[in-house]
Amino acid sequence: MTRLTSELAGFAAGPVNTSTAARLITALSVLDWFSVGHAGAAEPVSLIIRDMVLAEGGVGQAHLFGGSAAPARAAALVNGTISHALDYDDTHFAHIGHPSVAVIPAALAMAELHELPLVDLQEAALVGMELSVRVGLWLGRGHYQTGFHQTATAGAFGAAAAAGRLAGLTPDQMAQVFGLTATRAAGLKAQFGTMGKPYNAGIAASCGVEAVQLVLRGFIANPDAMEGPTGFGAIHHGADDSDAALDGIGETWLFEQVSHKFHACCHGLHAALEAARSLDIAEPEVAEMAVKTHPRWMSVCNQPAPTTGLGAKFSYRTVLAMRALGYDTARLDSFCEKVCADPRLQRLRDHITVEADETLSETQAHLSVLRRDGQRLEARHDLMEPLSLATREERVRAKSAKLIGAQASDEIWSLLRTGGSAAELVARMAE
Amino acid sequence: MTRLTSELAGFAAGPVNTSTAARLITALSVLDWFSVGHAGAAEPVSLIIRDMVLAEGGVGQAHLFGGSAAPARAAALVNGTISHALDYDDTHFAHIGHPSVAVIPAALAMAELHELPLVDLQEAALVGMELSVRVGLWLGRGHYQTGFHQTATAGAFGAAAAAGRLAGLTPDQMAQVFGLTATRAAGLKAQFGTMGKPYNAGIAASCGVEAVQLVLRGFIANPDAMEGPTGFGAIHHGADDSDAALDGIGETWLFEQVSHKFHACCHGLHAALEAARSLDIAEPEVAEMAVKTHPRWMSVCNQPAPTTGLGAKFSYRTVLAMRALGYDTARLDSFCEKVCADPRLQRLRDHITVEADETLSETQAHLSVLRRDGQRLEARHDLMEPLSLATREERVRAKSAKLIGAQASDEIWSLLRTGGSAAELVARMAE
Repeated sequence: MTRLTSELAGFAAGPVNTSTAARLITALSVLDWFSVGHAGAAEPVSLIIRDMVLAEGGVGQAHLFGGSAAPARAAALVNGTISHALDYDDTHFAHIGHPSVAVIPAALAMAELHELPLVDLQEAALVGMELSVRVGLWLGRGHYQTGFHQTATAGAFGAAAAAGRLAGLTPDQMAQVFGLTATRAAGLKAQFGTMGKPYNAGIAASCGVEAVQLVLRGFIANPDAMEGPTGFGAIHHGADDSDAALDGIGETWLFEQVSHKFHACCHGLHAALEAARSLDIAEPEVAEMAVKTHPRWMSVCNQPAPTTGLGAKFSYRTVLAMRALGYDTARLDSFCEKVCADPRLQRLRDHITVEADETLSETQAHLSVLRRDGQRLEARHDLMEPLSLATREERVRAKSAKLIGAQASDEIWSLLRTGGSAAELVARMAE
Repeated sequence: MTRLTSELAGFAAGPVNTSTAARLITALSVLDWFSVGHAGAAEPVSLIIRDMVLAEGGVGQAHLFGGSAAPARAAALVNGTISHALDYDDTHFAHIGHPSVAVIPAALAMAELHELPLVDLQEAALVGMELSVRVGLWLGRGHYQTGFHQTATAGAFGAAAAAGRLAGLTPDQMAQVFGLTATRAAGLKAQFGTMGKPYNAGIAASCGVEAVQLVLRGFIANPDAMEGPTGFGAIHHGADDSDAALDGIGETWLFEQVSHKFHACCHGLHAALEAARSLDIAEPEVAEMAVKTHPRWMSVCNQPAPTTGLGAKFSYRTVLAMRALGYDTARLDSFCEKVCADPRLQRLRDHITVEADETLSETQAHLSVLRRDGQRLEARHDLMEPLSLATREERVRAKSAKLIGAQASDEIWSLLRTGGSAAELVARMAE
């Protein structure tokens, strides 16, 4: 067995020392994942994938967002797709992907099937998401740049790790699972902008559950199919950087660097919105605003005067005017035609300018506000600056409360932090 | 939409003029596929994949080899895997893959679900297998040499085409199906020699059915995800040879060149066995035999004195001695420990030599037999030499009769050739 597979299998199947921070952030990611999945259950892609699976029937091993249950393999496909439908889930910049939407659906389906407590689910989800980040590092940026959707490819291995851990696999069985996952892991960036993007998360989750179900029954694959000249990495333009992947595994939790999204719009707008948040501006005081951003975003999210909710999600001028007018950019329903048509918003928007600045990174923005009283306020924000754990908790929980209601969010948080079961969590999926 | 996708979609969804030869050979491939699937239903990998799917339950939309039924998507996974378990199914050297095991399980599941006649199944299977050959040509040998299992990758597009045709998709819907298939098609040659190889056929079949089920419900993917700089072909080491793929499509049926296996052993041994067949040798007359073969096979199937059935499948000396002694190399049960232990076989084997000959191609062999009466017989065989349609029919039907019994084989042949229904065919899967 190759070193990479052997060490990853040992990590995924063995005892781990998790950090307090990693455990808290995992709980936040599960809450965040649940909230965006719940909020996305009626999206068109969500209804399609649910309908296909529900028409197949079968044993209700695991619950689905939007209600009903299905076999675990199908539930992972459905919940993975639904939870990425809004593209409002977490992101890890080292992995270059969305860890939770591939891993948590697989873990939750297995935890429900095996009637496990949420403490086990969370440990397995952390191990799986950490492993997906490390497989992402092993594959490297070239894999992503070439056109593979790392959320799906690296994500499938993370999903397999989490599902296998909850099924109690040995390290040898886990290596078999990784070998088998290597033959089915797939997903193209060419699907970005279509329903194929969230579907890629679903296939990763389902692939992980399927590999575990087969190996539990004695399936024998090639456990060396990740590495080597004809292995998954080599033929998918992977960098084969095992050192990067394995450095500090089991001691350092790279997953802790995960980012949660706090605005229901294009990621390119978030740094500017955070800068505006730090200035605490309100429309009556604002004479002019000027945003500076990385040149890359000018072609992505600088629509000058959109009239639809979707257009607003790609418009600096619109989201900054929304913020100054008190529209909550964390809420999905703030992005709509009615808000775009608000005459106050349209007036203010005309006093906002957007400029490219090559000295800024893709995660930075600079905002300058001229107040009516002549005072000028300036702020700069970098999304890479870590938040304190307390701030993360406050903001993820506030976002969750807006998506699923404060009471439900608090109750789920309590389940996650004080010994609830997978059954108690999934009972809330259809509410 | 790209030219490749547009033309493939038009071909897959539109009216076609099939040739008499293509129709006959398709019927033979369906009979052959059914026979090897039926014979492989109790293989270890077959029991595992069946058990996983049957544990999930669900609507019995499509029957499985070995009995019972499952949703169409799951049935395609199961029957694709089972029918490739023995590696005794058909091969196409331009496609570089096994067309029937990816395409027919998808087509049959959809034909049963939609209660269609076998004439529709066969036309869709022909269109799907032809399309998989052409996608194989588009991807080229580099894709295969790099490490992708073309049976699975090109096969997924063929499975999607056949399933979509039976579901009555329009050309635009078919293009959506191909775009969606591009994000899920996968399969590594690194699985060769393990259960992962037949599984790759199953995932191709299932991927095709899934893409159709989703597009039927309104799923919108990127229909251009096959071609272009970040499309499936470009990032999977494809040659992007659209001219080769599209040349004569709808007029010339490349599928007609498919080869059926007539010996239940490694393909490297088949040319030598066919040469022996042409000489009609029998053990009492044989003093010595000398085989010449392409050097590549010397490391693949030249075990000198195996003692197991599996070993015998990779041994020139053993299979030639078996033939001279009247053991039928088309039968699965001829390859066993008892035959290897036959003292007559062991004696004759010691008078057989094997030699590499660089002047031969991989599909050629030369056999020289010295008879006890001093006469020398020589024969040369090339597997690429086309058989007459009459000979093909006779030999495929004879093989089928050995695998599933003469009566069942004749009855299925009659169903295929005289207007039977998919329901009548699948009723025989569990017998």
